[in-house]
Amino acid sequence: MKIVKTKQEVRDAVSAQRAEGRIIGLVPTMGALHEGHLSLVRAAVEGSDWVVVSIFVNPTQFGEGEDLDRYPRDLEGDAAKCEEIGAHLIFAPNASEMYAGDACTVVRVEGLTEKLCGACRPGHFDGVTTVVNKLLNIVQPDRAWFGRKDYQQLVVIRRMVRDLDMPVEILGGPTVRESDGLALSSRNQYLGDREREVAPKLYEALLQGAGAAREGASGSEVERIVAAKLGEEPLFELQYVQAVEPNSLRPLKSETGPMVIAAAACIGDTRLIDNVVVEE
Amino acid sequence: MKIVKTKQEVRDAVSAQRAEGRIIGLVPTMGALHEGHLSLVRAAVEGSDWVVVSIFVNPTQFGEGEDLDRYPRDLEGDAAKCEEIGAHLIFAPNASEMYAGDACTVVRVEGLTEKLCGACRPGHFDGVTTVVNKLLNIVQPDRAWFGRKDYQQLVVIRRMVRDLDMPVEILGGPTVRESDGLALSSRNQYLGDREREVAPKLYEALLQGAGAAREGASGSEVERIVAAKLGEEPLFELQYVQAVEPNSLRPLKSETGPMVIAAAACIGDTRLIDNVVVEE
Repeated sequence: MKIVKTKQEVRDAVSAQRAEGRIIGLVPTMGALHEGHLSLVRAAVEGSDWVVVSIFVNPTQFGEGEDLDRYPRDLEGDAAKCEEIGAHLIFAPNASEMYAGDACTVVRVEGLTEKLCGACRPGHFDGVTTVVNKLLNIVQPDRAWFGRKDYQQLVVIRRMVRDLDMPVEILGGPTVRESDGLALSSRNQYLGDREREVAPKLYEALLQGAGAAREGASGSEVERIVAAKLGEEPLFELQYVQAVEPNSLRPLKSETGPMVIAAAACIGDTRLIDNVVVEE
Repeated sequence: MKIVKTKQEVRDAVSAQRAEGRIIGLVPTMGALHEGHLSLVRAAVEGSDWVVVSIFVNPTQFGEGEDLDRYPRDLEGDAAKCEEIGAHLIFAPNASEMYAGDACTVVRVEGLTEKLCGACRPGHFDGVTTVVNKLLNIVQPDRAWFGRKDYQQLVVIRRMVRDLDMPVEILGGPTVRESDGLALSSRNQYLGDREREVAPKLYEALLQGAGAAREGASGSEVERIVAAKLGEEPLFELQYVQAVEPNSLRPLKSETGPMVIAAAACIGDTRLIDNVVVEE
C-alpha cells in the first residue's frame, strides 16, 4: 500500500488500475480511523477491486470555534489499519494541495443542508459537498462508501451525485457501535470519564423513540419522547431531535411510512450525533 | 451522426468510444447554431477523436422576464450543420431528462459571478455552472470548447473545473464576427433592421477603448471612452462596460498588464454582449 500526497499521484495510480479493468472504490475520511471507518474500508475491499482511502481533515467544513485544530490526526496509525484490511492507496493531501489560494467554487445542496446538523453548523455541508465533489473528481471511483452514522451527510451526498450526474455509486455503511451502544466517532476521544459514561444515553433515547414510532407514535410524539429521555441527563445539551422522512429529510407528513430519528447533543465541549432509521 | 435524448444513451455511446481509446470532445450549446458555435465544433473535430455537441436551452440560466420562451430552437438544422462538420453525436435532452423534480444542488463560482453579466442577470451563472457541471459529468469528455464571446462564462467555467478538480481540459474559441464586426449570437436574429444596423457599434466602441488602452489609457479611462462612444447612439442602453483583469475579472490594479474590456448593452429588447482582450 502506498501513501500519496498529490492529486497527480492519485490520478496516475488510478489510471493504471483502470487500464487493467479494475473497479475503483473510494472511502473518503478525515482520518483518526475507528471501526466505523474500517467497516467501510472492508466493504470497499469486498465491493471493488482497488481501494483508495482519502484522509483529509477538511478545513472548509469546520465552523469558527469548532474543533479543526484539535481534531485527532494519526496518519501512520491510519495507514497501518488500512493496509491490514487490504486497501491499496492512501490519499493524504494537505490543504494547499486541495485548495488553490483563490478557490471560490462551492457545491451546495440547497434545501437538504439548512436543517438538522446544517442548522447548528452553518456552511458545514457546503464544505462537505465541495470537498467530496473534488475527491470524487480526483479519484474518479466507480463506488464510494459513507457511514450511515452521518445520516444527513449520506443523504446530501447521494443527492449531489444524482443532481450533478456524477458517474459514481454511493453506498452507505451501517453505524458501528461500542458494546454499550455509543456510535463510534473520532470525537469520542474528547469525552472525559463521566461524559463517556453517559454518552450511550443518546442512542438509548433514540431507541426509545424508535420503539414508540413502531407502536404508532407520530413524528412529533417521537421527538418529545427522545428529548424527554435526554433531558433526564443534565450533562446533555440537546441541539436537536427530529423525526424526518428518510430521503427528503422533511417533517413527516403521515403517521405511517419510514422515518429517521436524528439527534445531536453536546456533552461538555463534545458534539455527538446519532440516528435510528425506523422502517415502515 | 446520431441524435440522442437521454443521459444513458450518451454514456453508452461515449463508453464504447473510450473503450476504443478515442479522445472525447464536447461542445456544449443552447442550439440555434451559428458560425461561432460551428467554429467550436470544427476545433473539437480537429482537437479530439469523437465529438459530442450538446443542445439544451437550459431554463435555470434564464431569469424571470428573460427570453427563455422565444429563444430560437432548430434541432434539425443544428444537427445537419454538425453532421456536415463531422461531429459524432448530438445530445439534445429535454428539461425533465436533465433535472429531477426535486433537484436542489447548485454549483456556484463565488466572487467571479456577481460582477459584469452576473450583476445584470442574478442567478444566471449558477444555472450555467450547474448545467455545465452536469454535462461534463454525463459526457465525461477529455476536452470541452467554449466561445470567448461569452468571456465571463469561459473564465467562470475554467475556475469551476480547476476548483472542483474536474478531469477535463477547457478550451476557448475566438469570437466569430459578421463582416461589419458584430459578434455572432443566436440573439442577433431578434434585432430589427435599424437595430441591426447600429449593433456593430458595440464592437467599434470596444475597439476604440482597446486602442486607447494600448496607448496607455487606464482602465477607468478606457471604460469612459467606450461608454461615451456608445452614448452617441440613442438606441443603445448600456448595461455595463468594464476593463478588468482577464483571469480574476477584478478591476485593474496597475496601468500595465493585460485587460479584457467587456460590455453589455440592450438594443430594444435584445441584449448584446461583447469583449476585447488587450494583451500587455
